[in-house]
Amino acid sequence: MNNSLSESELLSKIFPMIKKNENVIVPPGDDCAVIDINGTNLLLTTDQVIENKHYLPNTPPYLVGKKLMARNLSDIAAMGGTPLFALLASASFQKNENWLLEFHRGVIEEGEKFGVTLIGGDLATTYSDTVNSLTLIGSVNGKGTLRSGAKNGNFLFCTGEIGNSFETEHHLHFSPRIAEGQFLAKYATAMIDITDGFLIDLKRICRQSQVSANVNLKNIPLRKLNGITPSPQKALTDGEDYELLAAIPSEKAQDLIKDWPFSTPITKVGEFTTHSDNIICDENNNDLIASFGEGYDHFK
Amino acid sequence: MNNSLSESELLSKIFPMIKKNENVIVPPGDDCAVIDINGTNLLLTTDQVIENKHYLPNTPPYLVGKKLMARNLSDIAAMGGTPLFALLASASFQKNENWLLEFHRGVIEEGEKFGVTLIGGDLATTYSDTVNSLTLIGSVNGKGTLRSGAKNGNFLFCTGEIGNSFETEHHLHFSPRIAEGQFLAKYATAMIDITDGFLIDLKRICRQSQVSANVNLKNIPLRKLNGITPSPQKALTDGEDYELLAAIPSEKAQDLIKDWPFSTPITKVGEFTTHSDNIICDENNNDLIASFGEGYDHFK
Repeated sequence: MNNSLSESELLSKIFPMIKKNENVIVPPGDDCAVIDINGTNLLLTTDQVIENKHYLPNTPPYLVGKKLMARNLSDIAAMGGTPLFALLASASFQKNENWLLEFHRGVIEEGEKFGVTLIGGDLATTYSDTVNSLTLIGSVNGKGTLRSGAKNGNFLFCTGEIGNSFETEHHLHFSPRIAEGQFLAKYATAMIDITDGFLIDLKRICRQSQVSANVNLKNIPLRKLNGITPSPQKALTDGEDYELLAAIPSEKAQDLIKDWPFSTPITKVGEFTTHSDNIICDENNNDLIASFGEGYDHFK
Repeated sequence: MNNSLSESELLSKIFPMIKKNENVIVPPGDDCAVIDINGTNLLLTTDQVIENKHYLPNTPPYLVGKKLMARNLSDIAAMGGTPLFALLASASFQKNENWLLEFHRGVIEEGEKFGVTLIGGDLATTYSDTVNSLTLIGSVNGKGTLRSGAKNGNFLFCTGEIGNSFETEHHLHFSPRIAEGQFLAKYATAMIDITDGFLIDLKRICRQSQVSANVNLKNIPLRKLNGITPSPQKALTDGEDYELLAAIPSEKAQDLIKDWPFSTPITKVGEFTTHSDNIICDENNNDLIASFGEGYDHFK
């Protein structure tokens, strides 16, 4: 931890520096930006993995590359989009040829599973850290599913299971929810992927939609570790789940469940409410962020 | 230097891993990739700056940001394209709020000068190194001006002056040759920007065009330092000039010079020849890379 200010505080000072551009349909602040290229809407996102922060040094390089691609794909999934192309900027410390080739193979093969072609990159070396960043380009209908559309009375749905991502190595092996995101986009008023933690990411939907949320703790789908389920506090603040949270109009919820074509679980875990103070409560009206904390700020 | 293999050797093993995609018009290996988005050709490029490698730690952060944007813009210039949008992935070590804000201001303001809007990014911290990478999206007519089109008998033109980029701080203050690149694209059969060094970058044109080149050493426009011109060896291998090298059909050279509308100098510095062994010689038929060395491999 070497920064006294949070990523969101810093961004609140950076965003006003940027001049408006009529071809930017969704500016920075959602899972992806959306730009208009002669009538085609493109999604753009960039994300990085840093050794000792996003993975341990002994992690197989193929899985490091796979994770880098997959976590960017998760941002495309959270918009309901289709990924297309990727560029990779690699700055590594004392990695041998095998490490670098297996890392690239991980990036390229994980991309190919979802129709992504690597089209460019830059290779450099550092003095100590290994930092790899990827930019993804995708397409989307309209603006995609933003964080800002959740309405009072919408149900909160969650894909897959959450918690124990590091302990189970889910964070290295997860499959980004591209198809699930495209399907959810037909129903959802808002969507986000869980990266920093269920609570912090749900709070982002609440803040950008100006609503609050009630969460049914007993319904949260928990990822078991050696047969033991994590505590709700751990599951809701762990982060790196790469599952989708979606706000679904209550009248569409039954159809969503009936027509859900995936083996990935889909679970109703709460409801959005009118309170404009963006509070997330459990069944007993306890403020969950006050009780559990928010989650993980990767910037700190 | 912590890698035994060069960037080009590594890339020669990575590129074959990538499957062909009919919407990729220019694959990795030129200044930018070109992709087809519903009939619009987009340029994509990514490049990074690393502290102690591309700038010294006491460099004003505004200039670090400006350089990061400008060196990416130079890749768009080398294709004859128009820059549009940028994404920034930042991984920094112990930078305070002022450093980070001024760095972002440098990126954003340098981009705005050339019509670029920052649309996304990621902020993270490291344990030691500061690594910032930028991805640029631009548009271009057709494929843009590639490295592979130079023909026997084409003249070699160079914008601006070269050499002494670090000593004069040109590498922090240069203006990317966007307008010059668009103008040159109307005449040129091949183009590249000088980043690693005049010789290594000219050799890239030669190799990809399957030609050789003769260089008139006495015509090379040299950047003076305290009134003293650098040696030809230094100027041709220094790197970080961010000037354009263009192959121009001899019959168009007179019109190019007559119609050149910029204050930036444009100088004929050589000719391309038929030899397929990609040798670069001076007026006395000396092999310049054998005499002077190639230039700087940022990967090593």
